[in-house]
Amino acid sequence: MLSFVNDYSEGAHPAVLQRLIDTNMEHLPGYGKDRYCLSAVQKIAQACNCPQAQVFFMAGGTQTNQVVASCLLESYQGVVAADTGHVNVHEAGAIEAVGHKVLTIPGEQGKIRAEDLKAFLEGFYADENHEQMVFPGMVYISHPTEYGTLYTREELEDLSQTCREHKIPFYLDGARLGYGLVAPGTDVDLTDIARLCDVFYIGGTKVGALCGEAVVFPRGNAPEHFSTMVKRRGALLAKGRLLGVQFDALFTDDLYSRISRNAIQTAAMIKKALHEKGYQIVMDSPTNQTFVRLDNERMEELSKQVAFDFWERSDATHTVIRLATSWATTVEDTQALINLL
Amino acid sequence: MLSFVNDYSEGAHPAVLQRLIDTNMEHLPGYGKDRYCLSAVQKIAQACNCPQAQVFFMAGGTQTNQVVASCLLESYQGVVAADTGHVNVHEAGAIEAVGHKVLTIPGEQGKIRAEDLKAFLEGFYADENHEQMVFPGMVYISHPTEYGTLYTREELEDLSQTCREHKIPFYLDGARLGYGLVAPGTDVDLTDIARLCDVFYIGGTKVGALCGEAVVFPRGNAPEHFSTMVKRRGALLAKGRLLGVQFDALFTDDLYSRISRNAIQTAAMIKKALHEKGYQIVMDSPTNQTFVRLDNERMEELSKQVAFDFWERSDATHTVIRLATSWATTVEDTQALINLL
Amino acid sequence: MLSFVNDYSEGAHPAVLQRLIDTNMEHLPGYGKDRYCLSAVQKIAQACNCPQAQVFFMAGGTQTNQVVASCLLESYQGVVAADTGHVNVHEAGAIEAVGHKVLTIPGEQGKIRAEDLKAFLEGFYADENHEQMVFPGMVYISHPTEYGTLYTREELEDLSQTCREHKIPFYLDGARLGYGLVAPGTDVDLTDIARLCDVFYIGGTKVGALCGEAVVFPRGNAPEHFSTMVKRRGALLAKGRLLGVQFDALFTDDLYSRISRNAIQTAAMIKKALHEKGYQIVMDSPTNQTFVRLDNERMEELSKQVAFDFWERSDATHTVIRLATSWATTVEDTQALINLL
Amino acid sequence: MLSFVNDYSEGAHPAVLQRLIDTNMEHLPGYGKDRYCLSAVQKIAQACNCPQAQVFFMAGGTQTNQVVASCLLESYQGVVAADTGHVNVHEAGAIEAVGHKVLTIPGEQGKIRAEDLKAFLEGFYADENHEQMVFPGMVYISHPTEYGTLYTREELEDLSQTCREHKIPFYLDGARLGYGLVAPGTDVDLTDIARLCDVFYIGGTKVGALCGEAVVFPRGNAPEHFSTMVKRRGALLAKGRLLGVQFDALFTDDLYSRISRNAIQTAAMIKKALHEKGYQIVMDSPTNQTFVRLDNERMEELSKQVAFDFWERSDATHTVIRLATSWATTVEDTQALINLL
Repeated sequence: MLSFVNDYSEGAHPAVLQRLIDTNMEHLPGYGKDRYCLSAVQKIAQACNCPQAQVFFMAGGTQTNQVVASCLLESYQGVVAADTGHVNVHEAGAIEAVGHKVLTIPGEQGKIRAEDLKAFLEGFYADENHEQMVFPGMVYISHPTEYGTLYTREELEDLSQTCREHKIPFYLDGARLGYGLVAPGTDVDLTDIARLCDVFYIGGTKVGALCGEAVVFPRGNAPEHFSTMVKRRGALLAKGRLLGVQFDALFTDDLYSRISRNAIQTAAMIKKALHEKGYQIVMDSPTNQTFVRLDNERMEELSKQVAFDFWERSDATHTVIRLATSWATTVEDTQALINLL
Repeated sequence: MLSFVNDYSEGAHPAVLQRLIDTNMEHLPGYGKDRYCLSAVQKIAQACNCPQAQVFFMAGGTQTNQVVASCLLESYQGVVAADTGHVNVHEAGAIEAVGHKVLTIPGEQGKIRAEDLKAFLEGFYADENHEQMVFPGMVYISHPTEYGTLYTREELEDLSQTCREHKIPFYLDGARLGYGLVAPGTDVDLTDIARLCDVFYIGGTKVGALCGEAVVFPRGNAPEHFSTMVKRRGALLAKGRLLGVQFDALFTDDLYSRISRNAIQTAAMIKKALHEKGYQIVMDSPTNQTFVRLDNERMEELSKQVAFDFWERSDATHTVIRLATSWATTVEDTQALINLL
Repeated sequence: MLSFVNDYSEGAHPAVLQRLIDTNMEHLPGYGKDRYCLSAVQKIAQACNCPQAQVFFMAGGTQTNQVVASCLLESYQGVVAADTGHVNVHEAGAIEAVGHKVLTIPGEQGKIRAEDLKAFLEGFYADENHEQMVFPGMVYISHPTEYGTLYTREELEDLSQTCREHKIPFYLDGARLGYGLVAPGTDVDLTDIARLCDVFYIGGTKVGALCGEAVVFPRGNAPEHFSTMVKRRGALLAKGRLLGVQFDALFTDDLYSRISRNAIQTAAMIKKALHEKGYQIVMDSPTNQTFVRLDNERMEELSKQVAFDFWERSDATHTVIRLATSWATTVEDTQALINLL
Repeated sequence: MLSFVNDYSEGAHPAVLQRLIDTNMEHLPGYGKDRYCLSAVQKIAQACNCPQAQVFFMAGGTQTNQVVASCLLESYQGVVAADTGHVNVHEAGAIEAVGHKVLTIPGEQGKIRAEDLKAFLEGFYADENHEQMVFPGMVYISHPTEYGTLYTREELEDLSQTCREHKIPFYLDGARLGYGLVAPGTDVDLTDIARLCDVFYIGGTKVGALCGEAVVFPRGNAPEHFSTMVKRRGALLAKGRLLGVQFDALFTDDLYSRISRNAIQTAAMIKKALHEKGYQIVMDSPTNQTFVRLDNERMEELSKQVAFDFWERSDATHTVIRLATSWATTVEDTQALINLL
């Protein structure tokens, strides 16, 4: 069975795993104070070109979004996000669980537009009743989005500018950030993100790690006692080394980018083949996710040999499926998939 | 530097790590639905002698306590615990963060007594104002306790009986459960715990795993949609395999017990040496933690060559320190420590 | 200055106030256990034709919605409501504050349709990822809605039926219920609501009381320890009599209906005059709220002599305003308003 | 039946009720923006000698404590209080419901001592593990306490000084403040409280109002958007006038003090009679509560003619009861009670 079902089907990238093996029996302090955590922080700060960056590691994405939102928001504020945003749809209410509303604006292929954000923020304050409403307290985007799409640098500049004008933090969920940074045609690099966002996280779980996300406060702007707040949410690992060692490996010799490219290259092979064979690709997604519309019969047949993700029913006889690649996808498997298409 | 500072200073037990290595590139489904999770569930259910047990894996102990408490309690209820209990003192308010009070009763060397529990529960309902108070909704104990002490089977029977009479669940935090189960003189085994508790967790982080705790509902009594509640707290790992593989290894060929014994044996060496050399051991702790009272000068000197945990100031010139062993402690290091005493 | 700005501009209806005066110096027990509370419960149960009804009094509507939602919902569930619902828009996030998401479906003039609800509920369970989403756990409607519109009995039957098929409670926010029950053309009475809803509240604040809402569990289906949950949210008044006396008065000799009619009659005068004078009424609202579109110049002029509520900007030169009547609106003031139109 | 069971058995003081009657049909804006609220704010500010004071009105004490705590505390902080404090014992977990722990220090007749507070705060920061603990974030006292006792000015100065040294707000729960301010022997007046506390509330429910408490931020130090936070907790009354009118009356011509004196005078009659008749008064309470130890037989007999509060079982044959007076207690009833003793 070929597997293109998602980007977290395998364990860790071998180089990451090797670092866990190599360091396994070292005696290290707990709770993120070991030397690998410290080294990973430094390397990430350097990659962001933000010497003052503060970096914290957490185990998963929903947890990270929850902790960050609960730390950034005042009690009377909510998170502004695309209606399709992960925090709004697929986190089982993790934002609401910590007391905050997700305030949605319509997404376009997963993205929000600065002009929609502006209109929302201005409309809020123009509403005479806004004191009885949830105040917008931060803006959440994902990059790549849940649809594999990417913001341009200009779009990020505009969103960032809008946030700063309204004095609300701009947060970027980078669960698949690696795949976004090396996608063809993107003009956004890590230093742009660090410059434009107030907080963001660099995804490990989907990009080479067993687990783990690195939250970056690029200008040393982490809230005081952030670790205690992480602990309070049950998100502080005793063996913080598990995360530190992995991120230290991922940010050594640019491993994070190098392994991300594999996902892009194999996705590009798939997109090219689909195009040549006349399939309908339904989203202009330059990253590791490919969304394709199949008639249901074709889908049934394919599903006997390939694991993929059912995305949405298109009409009575067609379905959109998602084919995901990752750092672990082999050219052989990709070719085998293409042969089946 | 010798390390006796805690029981989470190293990575995973080599056999556990090897299983992570062996399974690393397998394509597996996410969110705890992979075959290693399923296998680990079965093995744990068997070890508990509870064929109907439901088992869920989470990354850490505070997280586990938080999720379990939030799932077991009605909104108007709190957790009854020893005043020294981990949930009351060292989890940064994780129970309160999900809306519940910790109702304390005095601990004796970390343990609560059934008669104190009974008095507390009966006193509560006898109070005419109890409808304006927080109702006791579950009982929390740790075994071993935070002080390394153990309940006897009879003590657990009494606590369990008291809980059942008052129809409130009995929960056991087994962060160091392995060390308790193989301690000399204990008459409590895993099947006792499964029989007497309504929920408990088997600690992995401190007993051989990189991370991970296994929550057991021994009679298939997990709340409906437990996984969604786990997700909502940010506690559901996408790569659930990370936890499943490790627990599958720990419960293969009784590895969990075997590696726990090492901690007990090395702790016994230390306790014996301390006793022979006339040191004052301050807690009758039969597990992997040893609490000893030193004069401050001696402590200072020792700290140059040994990492240990400062426990509490005893008087102006004496301090209680903790020496912890684990599955990873070598006989060589233990002998070296003894030579320094 | 004429006042048509809202339906809570005056104190209590004189007959309600008189009961407060008459009972003022009686010694009564606290926390809703006094005889006036008990009497009000009985009268409301009788008016609902539900001898087993449980009735609780709270001070305000947002508080009531918050407490009810937090008591009815499991942690992993949210409230289904119209996107225009009060709980979604104008309660400052009170539902999220207690941990729950508001799951919106499009409202039509403030109402939700059973077919949209069905589609939403079925779509939820058909989604393969629904275990990572917020489960629908109750349905919220308001009657009259925020736009003054009313459900028909058939519409309520359909919504109720849909809720029962999916085993989720059906909750009706009756902040202005009195005005809905006596509106011309309605076929819904209080016994219908009690029969079709699982919980609802009868609004007092906007219908003759100084403050207070009566939450009704028509089949004795209140959650156990409801009062403790009310207390925990800070919503239990020590002098529960304040609410009991008022509701006892409101449900004596059908006062609640009688005073509601005044609002409808005066609103009808306004609607008729607007119609005759060629104004554009923008919502077919048969209750105490009238929404009319004015050109901005006209609005400015009117605002010098009449207090009304700005509702929404219609276009560059027109605005929708709301004229609200209540039990307290006099025919004289209404005629004076009409003369100004 | 004589009633000495509590201080909230009657409605409003007649002068307060009269103001509600007089203003009943005035058209007033909602949500605390009416002229009576504004006037009450000014009068309270003046009584506190704090021209910059911000004052907000809420319906009840538990609600007030909950809202204030949730606004003052950072997420990782808790409330320091006496173990006997109302927030710790009799609010059904309202503080925990908003996510915060109550950190207790031993109370002495309901009071905490500055030296105990100092020791607690210093001990917290001296604990090497304090980053994994709940930080002290505010100090809560009640004055009078739950036991009717009072702080001296010096004691308040010391507590206030300790709070300021540790930069945590000092909050006073004045549910019965009126009775404290006019008690014999007290050297604490309202301006002392305003000077020494960061926030406090002036109780209305127990001192002449139908309901209502006035929260004072004496130096204009209310958190931004406090009203929205109040709304979010369901604590914002639409008819804010209900509270404003009452407090305006209570702070006109010093009514608040004058009616408080009645409680003190009648309590003094009781205390004197108990003393003369050889009863054992168990608490040196100079305010409106009197705690007396009776043998159970005597208690049974008395309970046939007097309503009082069972306080606590003293031993097998004796019980402590509470006799409460209030603004509403008549000299006639008091004399009748004394005749029965």
